[in-house]
Amino acid sequence: MVANKVAVVMGSISDWPTMKLTCQQLEQLGIAYEKRVISAHRMPDELQDFGQKARESEIKVIIAGAGGAAHLPGMLAANTTLPVIGVPIKTRTLNGIDSLLSIVQMPAGAPVATVSIGDAGAKNAAILAAQILGVTDETLQQKLADLKEEQRVEAIKSEARFD
Amino acid sequence: MVANKVAVVMGSISDWPTMKLTCQQLEQLGIAYEKRVISAHRMPDELQDFGQKARESEIKVIIAGAGGAAHLPGMLAANTTLPVIGVPIKTRTLNGIDSLLSIVQMPAGAPVATVSIGDAGAKNAAILAAQILGVTDETLQQKLADLKEEQRVEAIKSEARFD
Amino acid sequence: MVANKVAVVMGSISDWPTMKLTCQQLEQLGIAYEKRVISAHRMPDELQDFGQKARESEIKVIIAGAGGAAHLPGMLAANTTLPVIGVPIKTRTLNGIDSLLSIVQMPAGAPVATVSIGDAGAKNAAILAAQILGVTDETLQQKLADLKEEQRVEAIKSEARFD
Amino acid sequence: MVANKVAVVMGSISDWPTMKLTCQQLEQLGIAYEKRVISAHRMPDELQDFGQKARESEIKVIIAGAGGAAHLPGMLAANTTLPVIGVPIKTRTLNGIDSLLSIVQMPAGAPVATVSIGDAGAKNAAILAAQILGVTDETLQQKLADLKEEQRVEAIKSEARFD
Amino acid sequence: MVANKVAVVMGSISDWPTMKLTCQQLEQLGIAYEKRVISAHRMPDELQDFGQKARESEIKVIIAGAGGAAHLPGMLAANTTLPVIGVPIKTRTLNGIDSLLSIVQMPAGAPVATVSIGDAGAKNAAILAAQILGVTDETLQQKLADLKEEQRVEAIKSEARFD
Amino acid sequence: MVANKVAVVMGSISDWPTMKLTCQQLEQLGIAYEKRVISAHRMPDELQDFGQKARESEIKVIIAGAGGAAHLPGMLAANTTLPVIGVPIKTRTLNGIDSLLSIVQMPAGAPVATVSIGDAGAKNAAILAAQILGVTDETLQQKLADLKEEQRVEAIKSEARFD
Amino acid sequence: MVANKVAVVMGSISDWPTMKLTCQQLEQLGIAYEKRVISAHRMPDELQDFGQKARESEIKVIIAGAGGAAHLPGMLAANTTLPVIGVPIKTRTLNGIDSLLSIVQMPAGAPVATVSIGDAGAKNAAILAAQILGVTDETLQQKLADLKEEQRVEAIKSEARFD
Amino acid sequence: MVANKVAVVMGSISDWPTMKLTCQQLEQLGIAYEKRVISAHRMPDELQDFGQKARESEIKVIIAGAGGAAHLPGMLAANTTLPVIGVPIKTRTLNGIDSLLSIVQMPAGAPVATVSIGDAGAKNAAILAAQILGVTDETLQQKLADLKEEQRVEAIKSEARFD
Repeated sequence: MVANKVAVVMGSISDWPTMKLTCQQLEQLGIAYEKRVISAHRMPDELQDFGQKARESEIKVIIAGAGGAAHLPGMLAANTTLPVIGVPIKTRTLNGIDSLLSIVQMPAGAPVATVSIGDAGAKNAAILAAQILGVTDETLQQKLADLKEEQRVEAIKSEARFD
Repeated sequence: MVANKVAVVMGSISDWPTMKLTCQQLEQLGIAYEKRVISAHRMPDELQDFGQKARESEIKVIIAGAGGAAHLPGMLAANTTLPVIGVPIKTRTLNGIDSLLSIVQMPAGAPVATVSIGDAGAKNAAILAAQILGVTDETLQQKLADLKEEQRVEAIKSEARFD
Repeated sequence: MVANKVAVVMGSISDWPTMKLTCQQLEQLGIAYEKRVISAHRMPDELQDFGQKARESEIKVIIAGAGGAAHLPGMLAANTTLPVIGVPIKTRTLNGIDSLLSIVQMPAGAPVATVSIGDAGAKNAAILAAQILGVTDETLQQKLADLKEEQRVEAIKSEARFD
Repeated sequence: MVANKVAVVMGSISDWPTMKLTCQQLEQLGIAYEKRVISAHRMPDELQDFGQKARESEIKVIIAGAGGAAHLPGMLAANTTLPVIGVPIKTRTLNGIDSLLSIVQMPAGAPVATVSIGDAGAKNAAILAAQILGVTDETLQQKLADLKEEQRVEAIKSEARFD
Repeated sequence: MVANKVAVVMGSISDWPTMKLTCQQLEQLGIAYEKRVISAHRMPDELQDFGQKARESEIKVIIAGAGGAAHLPGMLAANTTLPVIGVPIKTRTLNGIDSLLSIVQMPAGAPVATVSIGDAGAKNAAILAAQILGVTDETLQQKLADLKEEQRVEAIKSEARFD
Repeated sequence: MVANKVAVVMGSISDWPTMKLTCQQLEQLGIAYEKRVISAHRMPDELQDFGQKARESEIKVIIAGAGGAAHLPGMLAANTTLPVIGVPIKTRTLNGIDSLLSIVQMPAGAPVATVSIGDAGAKNAAILAAQILGVTDETLQQKLADLKEEQRVEAIKSEARFD
Repeated sequence: MVANKVAVVMGSISDWPTMKLTCQQLEQLGIAYEKRVISAHRMPDELQDFGQKARESEIKVIIAGAGGAAHLPGMLAANTTLPVIGVPIKTRTLNGIDSLLSIVQMPAGAPVATVSIGDAGAKNAAILAAQILGVTDETLQQKLADLKEEQRVEAIKSEARFD
Repeated sequence: MVANKVAVVMGSISDWPTMKLTCQQLEQLGIAYEKRVISAHRMPDELQDFGQKARESEIKVIIAGAGGAAHLPGMLAANTTLPVIGVPIKTRTLNGIDSLLSIVQMPAGAPVATVSIGDAGAKNAAILAAQILGVTDETLQQKLADLKEEQRVEAIKSEARFD
């Protein structure tokens, strides 16, 4: 039985190189997850179905990455009361500013917790999911505190790389 | 029996002052239409249902206006093979550049025929719908040709307003 | 005799690598088309002539790709009552945001059905043309429904490419 | 004893007209909250202190609104492992695009769950906080489901306002 | 007989409040001009005709103001070898950044001499026209030198308005 | 004696690869020119001196290329009543949108005739200079008409490159 | 004798409502200043002269406000080795993003210390000047520390304005 | 004893290739400096501590480089009355426009002296620091005057590189 399951969803398999970073960060934090390709524009029924059944599937947090006219995170948010984290994928034409605005500018009623464009956002989506789960999970809280401390030490030590 | 029915859909009743211009232009062109509020984020089931049944409801063209993270036009396009025209509503914060990018930057497979932001786009959506229907409707073609001629004459006459 | 002919026009031969995707998609849908280079700024007479005679040449839909200060789609729309689809070409300096705004922000009276910047838009222009023709062509409607289903299946199967 | 306390923090009292909407939405959802003005640039010690003690103060989620070079949400995220929701305040010069980028573009390691610019974002921040708390709070989940249903009904009924 | 005639053309009578500033500045410089409304999208034949006959009509410089997808200046440039000055009109949605990019980003071969957005650009268009005519007109050169000196004196004297 | 001399000025030798296109186009049109590096920020005295003496040096038109906070064209315009053409150089960080705005947004009184960003603009600057000189030079007018015709033919012939 | 004199320069008297805030802040900090209107484009000789004589005039820091194609700060920086602070004035068309890019994007060799757009920047320019002078002026350092403390207290007390 | 010490701080070791240019320019000007990696988001305590002790550590000017949601310069400014110079690092997604807005748009009370994005800004930060120190250091003033003269000569000589 998996208590804290996260769903990592992406709009296209071409988003995988970015969203893989989410999965790797979740693994490092010991969080169970499932990953899915659900294209908002090619698989709208699956999207609807996935969103509406997510809670009963024991999913606690949804992470959704999408690029361009990025509708996946917002449409999942429309279909669930679970927290949805949106990762704006960097695009070839507009560098992801289109993805960002399509994801973040949600109307009142259906929030998407938007993180930064591209790789940094993909990693942060995992950490944010952990923070959300950590609200009531002390073990996970501790892992996050440890990660923060590791990052601090790593940043301090990075001065050794001055040349 | 109405042969050429257009659906005018908007994401919120607050889009009505803009989308009303679409309806007025359709009326001037003598095109039958129905109007609906279908919020992508509040009424996702209705959106899905509407998109999937549009063709069998004898709708020929869908016009969808939405603002901000504007997902309505694209999600309708995901659910139908009818042509979908998207009207980016002007927004209070980003003036509609968010609406425009959310609507126009669709991935390959599900086009949205995007028109200009705000009032001009709302009128043009009606004309574009008429042009689409006019492909096989000679009466409508003639109406469009007449409208073009009226606009030409009106533009020429406007010089009388120099002061 | 070709009933449903589409014209694929581009402002420069340098737009061909993008607009070729339009032609390939039209071919896959079995839609007859002709292709032309008509530079708005180098061939204004030809543009005018082409726009004004398009309907009598049995063209049903015009697809026009252009970059930068992209005037081709809008000027064609000024000269015909046929539906005109505009493809904003990605530019070297501003990535196509200039092309997009030059094409989409048309004043009331002369709509251009604008699709996404670059390759995705080029493919979508063909699909949108098919949707327009499909309004009264059941065979084409079926092809579009089949394409949608193929895309759905392809998206679902793409999960096999997770590594 | 308050189990699920949310902190609503803003960078300036001038953000209150926006952030008040957050508080009202929290109240409607029956979520306990405290509100604070903590200017990142005028009260950095208080910011640091607040961030570091938030968890032990029984705060579960932090909502932070800020405008311009908006550092408050990110600096709180730097000092806590609690989830931090960032509300980009609309600005007089750049309409909040500066606030948005300053809040959302966080480097890997310290996510801020960013919502839309201005009023819609302020309301959504409260709903997102409720979704986060709702992960393990069934009563709150039900309230969110009820809110979603109310919004759906309200949207459907809004068609009565067509004139 | 008027030796140095300037044409002031605008895309819509709604541009007149801006383009009037061009006319007033031309008058102050004693330059003969004619003014016209020629909508690129409503009067394409007139545009074509005007551009092609401008030189034989004794016009020396064309000033063209247009907003949004502003095609008038570029299409005039396509039809003449006279210098064409483009004035980007401020727009209600995007403040004229759309007008600017639509006018300035011309491909190699057909330049438009673009000036600033709105009122300042409208005045500058007249001065630029005078500078162009002044290349071979010493009286006009002297007027421009006088205007420059007046502006200098006026700027210096403006310090009296410190309060 | 050279009657119609153009000055091609650039802010840095690093702008030469772009501004070389201006010089080549001037040569093709048979227009005499001199070229100079005058950095607005490193050589302000030389800029001032060059601007103020340009007319008496028999220069008729100044073309100035600059990038980033591009002050050269505007400061030359401040110091002369000759027409000044500004070429926004593409920049590594912001692709030349900074150059464009720094050059085009001149206040009333000192216009800069701005052309497109980068290579297209560099070529167009030469053509615009020729158009300005052509106002009273029939030989040059004819060359411009010939160039226009060549471009037309070249564009038409380019269809041979469809593959 | 005034040891630490600051010059407050603006490109136009229309910038005075903004730059007045700079002067008021300097007065509150007890810093002597002179104020001038020096238009880069109307008074280039005065600009040059002012920049080159600033140091010998006992000026220690120059604050320059300008809007649009804002060349004043950068051209002053070109003519002096004194620190130059640039205030981007909010503009009617592009809200000051043009002013900001024109001021901040200086090439290597001539920095402008750029502050925020509009009123906040105007106040901050005075504080930055004080910080610069405070490097070797302990009284001024103390005043700045006092101002910081006042701002802190004021921010804390502002919570009383929650309603 | 080092009289005029500058601190060069960066948010990440990945900023070093840019900030190295700052250090090299400081060395060329003979200015003592220390360099540090202080991540605002990973080392907030160190940031706070560094900012608050900077003045007593005999630091006179702080130069801080950061990218994306760049909070380091502003948070240092919040913790010191020393002048803080901000260098916006070019980012992979948005080219540094996010860094620029996050750094420059500070609220009234805590200025950051912002320089240009990327390499040019990194060099200029060092020169600006020298100008600040030069207010009361005549030797440094002379060095800056010499640098200016060298740059002038170098720019003039660069014409030899025309090909």
